[in-house]
Amino acid sequence: MKVVLIRHGESEANFENYWTGWLDVSLTEKGRQQALAAGEQIKELGISFDFAFASVLQRTIITCDAVLEASDQLWVPVKKTWRLNERHYGQLVGVNKDEMVAQYGKEQVQKWRRGYDEPPLYVEENDFDRRYDSLDPRLIPKGENLGMVVARVVPFWQDQVVPLLKDHKNILIRGHGNSLRALVKYLEDVPKDAMDTIDIPNAQPIIYEFDSQANLIERA
Amino acid sequence: MKVVLIRHGESEANFENYWTGWLDVSLTEKGRQQALAAGEQIKELGISFDFAFASVLQRTIITCDAVLEASDQLWVPVKKTWRLNERHYGQLVGVNKDEMVAQYGKEQVQKWRRGYDEPPLYVEENDFDRRYDSLDPRLIPKGENLGMVVARVVPFWQDQVVPLLKDHKNILIRGHGNSLRALVKYLEDVPKDAMDTIDIPNAQPIIYEFDSQANLIERA
Repeated sequence: MKVVLIRHGESEANFENYWTGWLDVSLTEKGRQQALAAGEQIKELGISFDFAFASVLQRTIITCDAVLEASDQLWVPVKKTWRLNERHYGQLVGVNKDEMVAQYGKEQVQKWRRGYDEPPLYVEENDFDRRYDSLDPRLIPKGENLGMVVARVVPFWQDQVVPLLKDHKNILIRGHGNSLRALVKYLEDVPKDAMDTIDIPNAQPIIYEFDSQANLIERA
Repeated sequence: MKVVLIRHGESEANFENYWTGWLDVSLTEKGRQQALAAGEQIKELGISFDFAFASVLQRTIITCDAVLEASDQLWVPVKKTWRLNERHYGQLVGVNKDEMVAQYGKEQVQKWRRGYDEPPLYVEENDFDRRYDSLDPRLIPKGENLGMVVARVVPFWQDQVVPLLKDHKNILIRGHGNSLRALVKYLEDVPKDAMDTIDIPNAQPIIYEFDSQANLIERA
């Protein structure tokens, strides 16, 4: 059984260099093309999916659809879950990265970006639309460090992906830089002080192979 | 509660004038633009969906995604079901409509097109990919008349849509000319000899209003 992780293609925020987190920015035209190219690659590799997951943010949903369309399997069921959302950057959301470096220094910004346990700059209140209305309000973060992202991504893996693997399904997971980094940490047992070494490029498939007990065999 | 039916935008087969049925043809560029325009219309009308359905054929899935994207609600859950597939045209699949008229006469072709109980020209065997593998093989038709389409669309309505209406949800249903015609027949109680009067244009929203017991109040 295969699990393929793919980060969304270039978003408007990647392009404009600010933090987005749970902001629902769209893809650039380049981002859409990257997603189609990833789908072509999946097709060439002959990977057939039985199930796909995306976050509830449009940059992963558009990417997911483009990959499935380009690999002729748009009929595959797709579930959208907030657990795959990008990390919630708290007060950093919408802020230009270079300006923050100028204001707080590179070291502090690096701590916020990559600190596993570094306290996030929480927002006072979230300004979301109705997409999270059905969730327990205590589930919705006001800011997250990497550890908090791991804590909410791992239950997604355990509850939703593992049963499918044990049922011999191939799975596509479309996520964001940090939700996929959290998943890789869990799957490859990466120590929390080495999370920096996990690189998740835009729209490049990361392919894992599992046995029928959902044990990791290899990363291709 | 609202239910909005929208047929897919122009497909390559609408354009080329042949029967497709369960053939998985794509949309034309015009078809994609029509779908985006329908989404803009939904946005202007201020309709918020809680759930969406499409067939397992890409022309409805692409249309569904385009409508949700253009109305800023791409996060809405989408379920893909074969019960919303276009009518299976049996041996007519892939055949040019004008050539059939030349060969069999307008009257016989009209009977095949619009006959509620007219026996279809069954195929001996279907040549489908794995997307129907999980279905009971006896569910998969080798050809359908309109009555058979109604018979498989109505359980979709009863089992999947009505519980959502009773739960106060607004629903988007993306289907095909004949699966939506079947639904309209059921909802408006159209006699089977008057099905010809049901017109389902490409990518034009048909809006129904229901009460909390899933009784039809009006068609807007």
